Amino acid sequence: MDERYMRLALQLAESARGQTSPNPLVGAVVVKHGEIVGFGAHLKAGEPHAEVHALRMAGEKAEGATVYVTLEPCSHYGRTPPCADLLIEKKVKRVVVATTDPNPLVAGKGIEKLKRAGIDVTVGVLKEEADALNEMFFHYISTKMPYVTLKYAMSLDGKIATRTGESKWITSEEARRDVHRERRMHDAIVVGVGTILADDPSLTVRFGHEGKQPIRVVLDTHLRTPLHANVVTDKMAPTWIVVGHHVTEEQMKPYEQADVQMIRMNENKIDVPSLLLELGKRNVMSIFVEGGAQVHGSFLRSRSVQQVIAYIAPMLIGGNEASSAIGGEGFGRMIDALRLQVKHVERIGPDIKIVAKG
Amino acid sequence: MDERYMRLALQLAESARGQTSPNPLVGAVVVKHGEIVGFGAHLKAGEPHAEVHALRMAGEKAEGATVYVTLEPCSHYGRTPPCADLLIEKKVKRVVVATTDPNPLVAGKGIEKLKRAGIDVTVGVLKEEADALNEMFFHYISTKMPYVTLKYAMSLDGKIATRTGESKWITSEEARRDVHRERRMHDAIVVGVGTILADDPSLTVRFGHEGKQPIRVVLDTHLRTPLHANVVTDKMAPTWIVVGHHVTEEQMKPYEQADVQMIRMNENKIDVPSLLLELGKRNVMSIFVEGGAQVHGSFLRSRSVQQVIAYIAPMLIGGNEASSAIGGEGFGRMIDALRLQVKHVERIGPDIKIVAKG
Repeated sequence: MDERYMRLALQLAESARGQTSPNPLVGAVVVKHGEIVGFGAHLKAGEPHAEVHALRMAGEKAEGATVYVTLEPCSHYGRTPPCADLLIEKKVKRVVVATTDPNPLVAGKGIEKLKRAGIDVTVGVLKEEADALNEMFFHYISTKMPYVTLKYAMSLDGKIATRTGESKWITSEEARRDVHRERRMHDAIVVGVGTILADDPSLTVRFGHEGKQPIRVVLDTHLRTPLHANVVTDKMAPTWIVVGHHVTEEQMKPYEQADVQMIRMNENKIDVPSLLLELGKRNVMSIFVEGGAQVHGSFLRSRSVQQVIAYIAPMLIGGNEASSAIGGEGFGRMIDALRLQVKHVERIGPDIKIVAKG
Repeated sequence: MDERYMRLALQLAESARGQTSPNPLVGAVVVKHGEIVGFGAHLKAGEPHAEVHALRMAGEKAEGATVYVTLEPCSHYGRTPPCADLLIEKKVKRVVVATTDPNPLVAGKGIEKLKRAGIDVTVGVLKEEADALNEMFFHYISTKMPYVTLKYAMSLDGKIATRTGESKWITSEEARRDVHRERRMHDAIVVGVGTILADDPSLTVRFGHEGKQPIRVVLDTHLRTPLHANVVTDKMAPTWIVVGHHVTEEQMKPYEQADVQMIRMNENKIDVPSLLLELGKRNVMSIFVEGGAQVHGSFLRSRSVQQVIAYIAPMLIGGNEASSAIGGEGFGRMIDALRLQVKHVERIGPDIKIVAKG
């Protein structure tokens, strides 16, 4: 039965995907005498934790109940008081935890507090599912850098454009709609300035989405983004432009006046690990890297890739000169290639979507 | 019920895949009073047709029976007498045909003969499946050129090798075993001389296969295949080397003495459509083109591709200089790209196999 209730808690947590950043997804279910008396999920940073919602719903029935929670209850004062304290105060009898806090400094402390208060604690029910639920968050907490997803659309022979640079459209409308769904799962969308110059995209989540828009991050060493580019003028989502150290305050000023946030690196280039640390400091927990091939190449060379989402169209373009999905220098030896695991294969309209993870 | 018996006939036909070339796959089932009284399949060129086997099994019960056959019975004298005549002679009552003869010159003639003899004929039961069963044969009969399958193994970013040319191994052993299964479905395996010089492959069907080996065809305009290459010396399968018109008799002689069949084109290059006509004349009904990228590029540019079998490994290699699956000149405009349809997606070990057709 533990698994059944935990599965519900996981579903509740999942329902808030895309809206809790920089907090993790958490769900909770309160059960007493074999009946569900309360449930909740963390819905938005700054709002109550899952346990608070669930215990509130349970009211007086919380006393002597079992609480299923997908992540170890917090034991420290953040924006809300510690959930461990609340569980103790409400006199619950048992707490079932799927997985422990990813922050090694606090991991186990919430559980310890509960145990010291005489509460029966079970840890590890559906742990794998719970870890997968928050993999981006866990990555961020343990590395201080955002979780990186590379995304591209290519032909069945691996091309992202013809030799003349034409790329509209390789994949179907159905696949392109799916990209919007995936964008929403990330805190920021990252592109190189080449993509801005070539396509002037708006890089927003469309197709009926009304919630928070991911930040648009443009990697633009020499600040070549036009002031009239959509990402600068449309105000549809926050835009950050990352530039090299040599770009002057004066050059940056007109962008700042257009509400663009400028990030100047410490070198005259954009080194991927430094960029990730910089984005991490600004609470960016996950990024969706949409290319082009050179940008993908930089992420690959520094092995900063946690996930790849590839859309493959059953089309052959051919050509030694046509750009393939990941450019740059690449690896010279097979032994250095970045090996991932296929997590998901799906047919979307006429195309195929492959999700692979490290 | 017609479909049920026809499905069995299709299964019987399918069971002989890879062993009937240059003849099609055909299955037959004889039914009388709701019971199966005979069945058969065409097993090998020169041996009896499916109807002959099935009627022989039925013996005297054939009189008044219904015969299900996946392909229109032949009406002309070939290596065996016409099956239409045999069906009439055995006094069957009804014949159910899945699809008509692909040769437009004889299509319908077998059916007509049966009808004139007073036999009730139904055409088109499971036609789609029957057409798919013999798609290679039907392509060959209608174009006089072999059915072309391009095969390659690539990384998830579309590379078939690193920038330094390393390619062993991109895909898993499981995927490489599957290649042997696919080779067996074709009359010939085609590679460029570059592949011979780089890897010296034997290009045979291994892993327990004891039947007929596909012909090994090497595209070698300037006759650079070494006399000590495995395909010349190992005698494991027939080898044909295709050369340009400028290659002399004297140059070819040592290869011929090693039992290699030399094919000299009429130009100083190997033009794909001319090659296909030449192979077609020699009864090659299907070819499995294993590359490299330049060879694939030539087939693509001439739009001579009926099927693609791509094995994709969840690995990222990167690099602008790394070769992607199809090279050559390629198409400059998206509108010219060769569009296929995904027919099959399968996970093989850690890899993904995609089959797409025109």
